[in-house]
Parts: sequence; structure tokens; C-alpha cells
Amino acid sequence: RSREMAKLTQLIDNEVFRAYATYATIVLLKMMLMSLITAYFRMTRKAFANPEDTASFGKGESAKKYLRIDPDVERVRRGHLNDLENVVPFFGIGLLYALSGPDLYTALLHFRIFAGARITHTFAYLIPLPQPSRGLSWAVGYAVTISMAYKVLMTALHL
Amino acid sequence: RSREMAKLTQLIDNEVFRAYATYATIVLLKMMLMSLITAYFRMTRKAFANPEDTASFGKGESAKKYLRIDPDVERVRRGHLNDLENVVPFFGIGLLYALSGPDLYTALLHFRIFAGARITHTFAYLIPLPQPSRGLSWAVGYAVTISMAYKVLMTALHL
Amino acid sequence: RSREMAKLTQLIDNEVFRAYATYATIVLLKMMLMSLITAYFRMTRKAFANPEDTASFGKGESAKKYLRIDPDVERVRRGHLNDLENVVPFFGIGLLYALSGPDLYTALLHFRIFAGARITHTFAYLIPLPQPSRGLSWAVGYAVTISMAYKVLMTALHL
Repeated sequence: RSREMAKLTQLIDNEVFRAYATYATIVLLKMMLMSLITAYFRMTRKAFANPEDTASFGKGESAKKYLRIDPDVERVRRGHLNDLENVVPFFGIGLLYALSGPDLYTALLHFRIFAGARITHTFAYLIPLPQPSRGLSWAVGYAVTISMAYKVLMTALHL
Repeated sequence: RSREMAKLTQLIDNEVFRAYATYATIVLLKMMLMSLITAYFRMTRKAFANPEDTASFGKGESAKKYLRIDPDVERVRRGHLNDLENVVPFFGIGLLYALSGPDLYTALLHFRIFAGARITHTFAYLIPLPQPSRGLSWAVGYAVTISMAYKVLMTALHL
Repeated sequence: RSREMAKLTQLIDNEVFRAYATYATIVLLKMMLMSLITAYFRMTRKAFANPEDTASFGKGESAKKYLRIDPDVERVRRGHLNDLENVVPFFGIGLLYALSGPDLYTALLHFRIFAGARITHTFAYLIPLPQPSRGLSWAVGYAVTISMAYKVLMTALHL
């Protein structure tokens, strides 16, 4: 069994794969942060989606008024959903890309630009910055993912 | 080619990876179950989102009244989205964690607690249980994922 | 290090894994396409979710009227979310399935049917086609994923 473990460890010892693991973890953690920001705004804005979440504010009508839509909460939730829509393809296509044998420099370039673009996107969404800040940062991350998908299909194509 | 297959098979023969494969599949199947529960509530509550879904109830106004928001349907949909937001990071970070060479006992502890927390979360959301049941089960799964991310970054960090 | 790279390359040289990489990339790209279609409908229908997105239409009330819900935009967004709910399990369970040593013919059958079902689902949602087109294409993709999960659990089970 120790030989098998060694082989697994080789994957995480590969520099491109380590770079992928690092940036994939960073963008997934950034996406997870959106849950905490949503919770923060729900509590400070007192705007909840479930009756059981407002029970501590009293019973009946006094609690029911906190079952409401708040624009700040909705903004964070849109940012979170946009993360899901973009980080999932990055994670999936990026994993296949990391296994398709890119050179380290090119791979790092892809991973760093994507991570930078998504962090910028979050600031652009939450502050919010005037457009086209959010649109551009979204487009950069999208283009990086397309570029990796192109490399995967060129390397692996088997229809 | 048979040698390559052998190497692939070694990955699935590794005990930590097998444990990961098992629990990742379980939580993904649990997430998929939310689609069936949503469909069940849409049909029993007669609450649909698309005009073509209500065509079997007749034409015009008699069908249009079923294009509506139902609180039970929305509750399942919130649970489903919460699964997406939390199972995606578990799947991604957990895969990298499983490849980072943790010992089997620690890895199983992470995977089992996460799966238990998410199953509890679903019951807490759908029954619903009074808070903080749902909040706590969410937090436990979140903490497990952070713990795995820490191990991945300690092992693989390559910025 | 070159020996490690060689080992990584072997993964992408494996025919089943190459087939997985190809179809996983195709369905992830198809999912990404939903973002562009949403953007297209938001611009042509002039229906936006964020005040900063309508700033180019003027200030005050003249811009505010474009902060609205449009049925065509919402339809694409529902299709996008349905993709997330179904492509994520396919990607995750499919990856583990590809590593569980299925024979190439069976694996290709699973991947091709899933990709075909999800592409059909998108057309059925966006045109829209009368039911049960959308429901059936959804169910086919769902069943393929369950079938792969069964193979993974039979091969890897380690609770």
C-alpha cells in the first residue's frame, strides 16, 4: 500500500498540479466567503428567508416582518451565484487542464489571472464599482476558462 | 495500454481515495435528491415556473393560475441551492485533500462528519427543525471544508 | 521531475479518461454558454438586476425602469441553474466513474447520452418545446448520473 500512496503523492508533488491545487482552493474559499457575507447582511439588515430564522425576534407579526427581501442581501446572493456559475467551470476544466501537461509558466498565468479576476469581480459586485468593472472582471475569468478548455480539447479529444 | 489502466485503478484502490469517492458520491446523490423533492412539491402543490409545465391543466386562465410561487417549493429550492454552495467546495477541496496524502483515519473523520452534517442540514431545512439546528449543521460542514483546505494549502502551496 | 510529468500525462493518455475529459469539458462549456445567453437577453430586453448596470441609460427614474424582471431572462436563468444542479453531479461522479475502471464502450455510452440529454434539455428549455421534452431530457441525464454513481459505489465503497 505504501507504493500506492507514493504514487498519489506524486500527483500533489507535480508543480503544475500543486499550482492548480493552490489556486482552486483559493477561489473555492473565496466563494465560501460569500456565505458568511450573506449571513452578515441577513443579520445586520434583519432580512431572512425562513420563518424559523426569525423566531428569536418574537412571535407572530413582530417576527414576520423580518421575512423580507433586502437589496444588500440580494446583491451578495447574486455575487455568490455568479461565483458558482464561474468557479465550477474553472475547477472542472482547470483540473483537466492541469492533467493535460501544460508548462508551469503558462498554467500559473491562467490560474493567477483567473483568481485575480474573480477577486476583483467580488469587490466590483459588493462595493459596487461602476461598470464595466464587474463586466470586465467577469469576462477575463471567462476567457481564461475558455483558453484552458481549448488546451484540454486539443490534448484529450476523444468523442 | 493495460499498464496505464493498472495505474488508474491504483488511484481507486487507494483507501483514502476510495473513502473520498464513497462520501463524495453520497453527498452528490443527496444533492440530486433535492431535484426529485422539488418536482414532488411542484406537482402536489401545483406550483410551476414555466407555462409549458401547466399545459396539461387546460388552456388560458385555468392553467395560468398554477404559475405561482409556493412556500414549500421555495423551501426545497433554498435547500438545493445551499447544497450547491457547500457540496461544490467539499467536492473540489476534498478531492485535492484526498490527493494530499492525509492518513486514513483523519480523512474518514472529515468525510463522515461532512456527510452527516449535510444530511442533518437537509432534514433541518425540510421538516423544518427550530434553529439553530440548520445553522449548526451548516457550520459543521463549513468547518470541515476549511480544515481540508488548510491541509491542502499546507501540502501543495505553490503561488 | 520529467518522470512525474510522464505519469500525469498517462492519466490524460488513458482512453476512458480522455473521453471523460472531452465530454466533461463540452457540458461545462455548454453551461458557460448560458451566461452569454443571459447577458444577450438582459441587453435586448433591457432588464437588469443591478443599478450600476443601467447607468448608461441615464440617471434617476429613466434608468430605474430597466431594473426589472423579464420572463425571457428568467427562463434562461432557470436553465442555467438547472445546468448547475445537474452538470456538477455529472462532473464529480463522472470523474470518480472514469477512475473506477469502466470499459471504454460503456463509459462512452454514459458520457454521450448525458451530453446529448443536456443539450436537448437546453433547447427544450429555451425554445421552449412542449412537455415532456424538457422533463424527459432531464430524466435521461439524471439516470445516467445515477448509473455512474452505482458503478463508483460498487467499485470504491469504503464507508
